[in-house]
Amino acid sequence: MNTEVRETIFQHALEWVLEAGKMIKAHINDPLTIDTKSNANDLVTTMDRDIEAFFTSNIKQIFPDHFILSEEGFGDQLDTMDGTVWIIDPIDGTMNFVHQKRNFAISVGIYQDGIGEIGFIYNVMEDVLYSAKRGEGAYKGNKKLPALNDNLNFHESIIGLNHFWLCENRLVDERVMQQLVKDVRGTRTYGSAALEFASVAEGILDGYLTLSLSPWDLAAGMVIVNEVGGMTTTIDGEKINMLGNNSVFTCNSKIHQRILESYLQEARK
Amino acid sequence: MNTEVRETIFQHALEWVLEAGKMIKAHINDPLTIDTKSNANDLVTTMDRDIEAFFTSNIKQIFPDHFILSEEGFGDQLDTMDGTVWIIDPIDGTMNFVHQKRNFAISVGIYQDGIGEIGFIYNVMEDVLYSAKRGEGAYKGNKKLPALNDNLNFHESIIGLNHFWLCENRLVDERVMQQLVKDVRGTRTYGSAALEFASVAEGILDGYLTLSLSPWDLAAGMVIVNEVGGMTTTIDGEKINMLGNNSVFTCNSKIHQRILESYLQEARK
Repeated sequence: MNTEVRETIFQHALEWVLEAGKMIKAHINDPLTIDTKSNANDLVTTMDRDIEAFFTSNIKQIFPDHFILSEEGFGDQLDTMDGTVWIIDPIDGTMNFVHQKRNFAISVGIYQDGIGEIGFIYNVMEDVLYSAKRGEGAYKGNKKLPALNDNLNFHESIIGLNHFWLCENRLVDERVMQQLVKDVRGTRTYGSAALEFASVAEGILDGYLTLSLSPWDLAAGMVIVNEVGGMTTTIDGEKINMLGNNSVFTCNSKIHQRILESYLQEARK
Repeated sequence: MNTEVRETIFQHALEWVLEAGKMIKAHINDPLTIDTKSNANDLVTTMDRDIEAFFTSNIKQIFPDHFILSEEGFGDQLDTMDGTVWIIDPIDGTMNFVHQKRNFAISVGIYQDGIGEIGFIYNVMEDVLYSAKRGEGAYKGNKKLPALNDNLNFHESIIGLNHFWLCENRLVDERVMQQLVKDVRGTRTYGSAALEFASVAEGILDGYLTLSLSPWDLAAGMVIVNEVGGMTTTIDGEKINMLGNNSVFTCNSKIHQRILESYLQEARK
């Protein structure tokens, strides 16, 4: 994707992200219609659907040859990442949106032939926008984010992960993960993958581990984390598949290998 | 404590809390001197000590007959809660303060003969002040917090707890706690007990469990949660001892008993 094309797409996406944020904010106290999806705690609201429809109709109008991968079904059925693909989560952290009316984000990643070119993570209620263009750095608002700490000590790191890692599960030996919890300085759980990616990009978390994410949960985050020198792989250290679900490990590069080798490989079933 | 006396103390405390917040904010980007206390992850900075000294010198000057229980050693050695006791954590969530420069709070509880009369939790970087006076309700800024949801469904609750509950530990059977994680809607970990109490008071968490807290971690939170109808006990359902360390369980009253009986009593070693 050349710089000029990217800039044009970036500006449109920026406008739509901010507009979508305004729509959510204006209706934050409206009564919600809440449905569940894969399980009783996998929530979706009319707001998720409305915001996704807002994006898809705008994209289809201005960029009719672009493709869309999105959470609530208004996008395309894709079996390849060829071309320009918008990967959208209208509300990442729907449980927080429903229960807390905060701590959720709009996540938009734009990929060209499988390569992340643009990422937006918008913390709507705090009005904080993280953005990045490939090769041009990542920003929090208008402020460029510095490269991640190259002197990070593993034992002083703070890692984001949810509590299921420590319960019996089909992916990893929970006892090894419990040892990881004891060996790092601290662990946190915020309930929005996009905001956890943003936290890694900002260096307020040093890594974030998750058992299963869809492409829309991570597409923007990967671009943003990459621009500050962080790494994103599966928990096996492999490349993320943008067309399926993945276990995810995004991290300060300094400790990525250590956690991968000493814990994740050990824990892997 | 009569209303007039309480109001006078409240106004002084309010002024000092806001002033202390300004001092922290003004120096948030200064290099820190960080020491460790009980273990390598139990951090203390010169800022913790400076803020505590600021409170203690003000209190001793204006209220020479009051007592002070505080984290960093500028307070009194108390073996009774008789009289008026200020219970102060100058920076609750020191790890967040050091690593994130946000997500920490000043916590000030004021007790009369063991009864919580006043509570302040100040999220410094977000400039959000939670406050309460006994019998007069709790506030977030100038806005009165509503009573906690009386229709809360246990399976739809979000509970704050750190990851150590799910690792082998001396207090509880971690497998029972893992079942709790599976049975509620979600779990979160923010890294500041005071802000987790404030989240319970606001209803954005429905409960918060912690293995061991000192009085200064919970004194303000208890007053604030109490004013919206929440309950705070040990994990055995007993009264909190303000002169020692406690396991703590603060919660929406609607589900307190259920979690206590079905999980904590079961898990208790």
